[in-house]
Amino acid sequence: VPDLMSFDASPGNVSYTFGGREPVGEIHPGDLVRLRTLDCFGGNVRSVADLPSKMCEFPFLNPVTGPLYVSGADIGDTLAVHITDLTVASNVGYSATFPHFGALTRTATTAMLHPALAEVVWQYTIDAERGTIRYAARNSNFEVDLPLSPMLGTVGVAPAGGETRLSIVPGWHGGNLDCPQLTAGATLYLPVSCEGALLAVGDGHARQGDGELCGVAVEVPMDVTLTVDVLPGLGIAGPWLETDEQIMCIGVARPLEDAYRSAHHGLVRLVQDLTALDELDAYQLVSQAGTARIGNVVDEQYTIAAAIDKGVLDRGHAFQNAHQRLRAVGGNR
Amino acid sequence: VPDLMSFDASPGNVSYTFGGREPVGEIHPGDLVRLRTLDCFGGNVRSVADLPSKMCEFPFLNPVTGPLYVSGADIGDTLAVHITDLTVASNVGYSATFPHFGALTRTATTAMLHPALAEVVWQYTIDAERGTIRYAARNSNFEVDLPLSPMLGTVGVAPAGGETRLSIVPGWHGGNLDCPQLTAGATLYLPVSCEGALLAVGDGHARQGDGELCGVAVEVPMDVTLTVDVLPGLGIAGPWLETDEQIMCIGVARPLEDAYRSAHHGLVRLVQDLTALDELDAYQLVSQAGTARIGNVVDEQYTIAAAIDKGVLDRGHAFQNAHQRLRAVGGNR
Amino acid sequence: VPDLMSFDASPGNVSYTFGGREPVGEIHPGDLVRLRTLDCFGGNVRSVADLPSKMCEFPFLNPVTGPLYVSGADIGDTLAVHITDLTVASNVGYSATFPHFGALTRTATTAMLHPALAEVVWQYTIDAERGTIRYAARNSNFEVDLPLSPMLGTVGVAPAGGETRLSIVPGWHGGNLDCPQLTAGATLYLPVSCEGALLAVGDGHARQGDGELCGVAVEVPMDVTLTVDVLPGLGIAGPWLETDEQIMCIGVARPLEDAYRSAHHGLVRLVQDLTALDELDAYQLVSQAGTARIGNVVDEQYTIAAAIDKGVLDRGHAFQNAHQRLRAVGGNR
Amino acid sequence: VPDLMSFDASPGNVSYTFGGREPVGEIHPGDLVRLRTLDCFGGNVRSVADLPSKMCEFPFLNPVTGPLYVSGADIGDTLAVHITDLTVASNVGYSATFPHFGALTRTATTAMLHPALAEVVWQYTIDAERGTIRYAARNSNFEVDLPLSPMLGTVGVAPAGGETRLSIVPGWHGGNLDCPQLTAGATLYLPVSCEGALLAVGDGHARQGDGELCGVAVEVPMDVTLTVDVLPGLGIAGPWLETDEQIMCIGVARPLEDAYRSAHHGLVRLVQDLTALDELDAYQLVSQAGTARIGNVVDEQYTIAAAIDKGVLDRGHAFQNAHQRLRAVGGNR
Repeated sequence: VPDLMSFDASPGNVSYTFGGREPVGEIHPGDLVRLRTLDCFGGNVRSVADLPSKMCEFPFLNPVTGPLYVSGADIGDTLAVHITDLTVASNVGYSATFPHFGALTRTATTAMLHPALAEVVWQYTIDAERGTIRYAARNSNFEVDLPLSPMLGTVGVAPAGGETRLSIVPGWHGGNLDCPQLTAGATLYLPVSCEGALLAVGDGHARQGDGELCGVAVEVPMDVTLTVDVLPGLGIAGPWLETDEQIMCIGVARPLEDAYRSAHHGLVRLVQDLTALDELDAYQLVSQAGTARIGNVVDEQYTIAAAIDKGVLDRGHAFQNAHQRLRAVGGNR
Repeated sequence: VPDLMSFDASPGNVSYTFGGREPVGEIHPGDLVRLRTLDCFGGNVRSVADLPSKMCEFPFLNPVTGPLYVSGADIGDTLAVHITDLTVASNVGYSATFPHFGALTRTATTAMLHPALAEVVWQYTIDAERGTIRYAARNSNFEVDLPLSPMLGTVGVAPAGGETRLSIVPGWHGGNLDCPQLTAGATLYLPVSCEGALLAVGDGHARQGDGELCGVAVEVPMDVTLTVDVLPGLGIAGPWLETDEQIMCIGVARPLEDAYRSAHHGLVRLVQDLTALDELDAYQLVSQAGTARIGNVVDEQYTIAAAIDKGVLDRGHAFQNAHQRLRAVGGNR
Repeated sequence: VPDLMSFDASPGNVSYTFGGREPVGEIHPGDLVRLRTLDCFGGNVRSVADLPSKMCEFPFLNPVTGPLYVSGADIGDTLAVHITDLTVASNVGYSATFPHFGALTRTATTAMLHPALAEVVWQYTIDAERGTIRYAARNSNFEVDLPLSPMLGTVGVAPAGGETRLSIVPGWHGGNLDCPQLTAGATLYLPVSCEGALLAVGDGHARQGDGELCGVAVEVPMDVTLTVDVLPGLGIAGPWLETDEQIMCIGVARPLEDAYRSAHHGLVRLVQDLTALDELDAYQLVSQAGTARIGNVVDEQYTIAAAIDKGVLDRGHAFQNAHQRLRAVGGNR
Repeated sequence: VPDLMSFDASPGNVSYTFGGREPVGEIHPGDLVRLRTLDCFGGNVRSVADLPSKMCEFPFLNPVTGPLYVSGADIGDTLAVHITDLTVASNVGYSATFPHFGALTRTATTAMLHPALAEVVWQYTIDAERGTIRYAARNSNFEVDLPLSPMLGTVGVAPAGGETRLSIVPGWHGGNLDCPQLTAGATLYLPVSCEGALLAVGDGHARQGDGELCGVAVEVPMDVTLTVDVLPGLGIAGPWLETDEQIMCIGVARPLEDAYRSAHHGLVRLVQDLTALDELDAYQLVSQAGTARIGNVVDEQYTIAAAIDKGVLDRGHAFQNAHQRLRAVGGNR
């Protein structure tokens, strides 16, 4: 039976950057690790009257639990992080508009002369049993249930080159990817850039739409169960994601077409590796069999996950079978 | 019983532009119309030895059947085009790389100093009964079946302001949208910019991946059955798509985030109309309930379809119920 | 002595598209041609009370004088258009904000939820003798003189492939390039896509800032003197510009980095042609010696002109010396 | 007489990040400070045979001298850095192509399937007396002189929020801006995000073209003389630049139009502050009087400097007259 390491979201266990922090604990490949994560507001938004811009102070946004030192991980390795379980740790979630943040508003870089949109908070009630969350309009009686689809917005390690990045920033180190496929049953692969990798996770979402349109998902605290593996000598450039059915390369870039390009470039190279197809044969296969899902169009870098069904690749034993192995760890729980 | 109008793809029935052409026939709202469309190569690629750049001459690319004069359609109306049936009219389809075209190659605008990628043609065998197409690598023995998913890449009308656009260009008039949701059972809405609308359709795909990565889908001739309606006084800015389950606004722009933005802006406005939600309430709902699928990242403008389930909108009786009415026309056949 | 052809801006001489129109007259290479152009508002804005959105009706925006049939021009040739003289034909000019148009406002594609900025008109008094125009604030007493720098925003020919484009759109056919270097003494090169080329010009600016920030320059009617030449068998992909000192390739694309890329790609190739440098040597030289000026960041396509001093290229006898020849025509006047 | 502090570029004085480093010394407002900076290759490229990818190892690229603790600087202040003098500290400079870096090559994010361009090094001889540098082609006998225009590519402080960024990255903290206006006589303003600001400078260029096309300027070691001031309580969002003639706001973003937008948004706000014009009056004035110069189109973020002549603003006494004061410090030397 694997050990069950546990980390709550007390102040000492929480960080606001990837890199630049001492680890809060050590975990080992194959450990089953339980973490509590705060929501992106640090739990400070507790009603629709709590405006995020008043309750949260830069840079204390999007707390991540960790970092955790992964024994055996070192520069040039790949860290496989398998999400065994995600359980929303609240019966309500919050979303909001936030001044100068979101896809349909002026921002600091897509700068315009318009006044900011109004800052508004929405509270969602969560019915874990029925698997739904309830949207309620603020200015009318309209209510509707949406499927509960728990995911983690932010999973990352210390960046390369000694950089320290805010936890709200996505990058090749992972971070605030905001990809809705990062859910229970998925394995995220990240490049290790320092001894111990320094894994941290946070930003639970009860659900989000593609692209995280208004910049804020249905934000919730989360009980996370995960397990990790270290793949030595398997250098990857940026984040990859694997589920039972698909392998995905995550592109992290602006403009959005560059996120599309880099995600698909990675996927074409992987298809070459797994099938021995030449470059153009692999390009052709991905052109017809690939799917692409937008993660976010609001963060400092946008994200797109380019995916291919493992069935197309004859089950595609990528990443040294880490997904299958880590999935079994969770299954043994 | 509705009339069955029929148009083959003989040279006189084929056009290479939207606008700038006399109609080849007239159709009426509620008619069941049968069209044959050529593939984007005009049928000139007949083996993997036929390089498109040799077999096709600019501007004679991507032939569309039409234009058809829609009786009763006039400027400011909306044309609803319901695809009743799509049947691939060949047992093979072709795809290719094409010099300076595609998402992972330099192009005329994403200009670079690299030599062009090699031009290569792939032939897919189509098994309509099993509902599969077979990918076969050119440089190894790898073969794999992919689902047959017939769709139309190009459906459009004459553009606004008296413009004439090549059929390979997408725009607010529709045209080469390359959205994989444009399949049998879907209704496309287009703004009418001249008397008769001047509808034309083409560019059948046996399937395509999201974004049409290499710039060319599995290109096939198609037997198209469609029926149209005219919605007077319902001005729309650009293309919309409706299925039994979803309503979608199609953004057509570069960079890709602008396609995302304009698609979602349209969708937020529609949600306001259908639900009486205010702007920010609608923005919030789409932020959590919306999905976004990339059409193409290779054409002169990129496309993204922002979608919402009609169930979320209490069945969303949009577009004067044209989708339901036109679907019934096909059902009576 | 060359003939002096003359075309006023009466309704019969004015067009709103490139392509799709019969020529209003014929000119010959070496003719000295005098044209009057209307301002982009068609002369309908006559005071700061005249809001463009009220005074102008789509698609009757940005009238161009022409098209002129250039004798001897045919598909695949290059048309050289030398601007011999530009004289502002009014003592006032107008600028304005326009709803959903400009770089610091939401637009149809950079779509956002903000209400439109206010529509405001500014009147500039023009002092041709002193060479200044006077800016006067609308909501305070602030006034300041700026240099008078007459230029043409729009010079183009019929587009390739039988397309018809609105005169407000820039493209490889020229059109609404909005490059401030297009002034008296400059030669614009355009690809000829039909017999007679069908040249039209308009959109005089008393001056504009880089990028045409608010979308509207200081708009004026203009007396234009120009002369043309036809360079047979010199196919070019898009617009080029030459002055006594510089050769420039104009990139026309979105996003703006693609305008930068395509402009510089063209310039590197030209440097190779003129100097016999290899590709990377030419790339290096342009990297250190090139300048890049932004034309517009507001039109359907953005523009950047990448330039190199002809002195660097040993005077760079490009384009069959058309600039020098056409300059002499004007000098003989 | 101000003190002359001096810092050489010995290993202990050199850093590869902004943030994350202890200061190497302390300077005071009004001190005249002399620094030696290494070239971006750390001095490791000493002939055209020294390929950068072999001679330099990530992350030891683009060394900056510093960081320097500025006494009195604290969070929320603005640091004014006036470049009193730049003297190239070598009689040769080097440029190069670098795999997957530059505007006309595939990169990690504008990912494509083309093989990398060849890596080539060019050596420029520098004639400080004549004020020229000599370009010499690698594969032909072509040589030409270009003006010597010394500038600093990289000047920055510790980033906000505790981030650490590689010195090759530009951002709101400054860093690798690669703006050719950052030359002797210019004052750069940067937001202070920690006690002491932690200023570092490097990346001297003998000259660069607009946009730094191939990704590498004419790289040289530099003797830098600078002096600083601290403007308390003058929070700015990102970098600004001032010369005797102009005030400039530097936009740092992707895509390039967002760099254009944010630079001009800042400039419009400054014009409002200095002239009491309202928002739209200021927008209009910048639209006609503004210029925009591209810094780089190759780094992790692109840069554009939007400028306005101080004469237009009645000499524009911005930034508490720091530029004038600091200029005088240098003059007293």
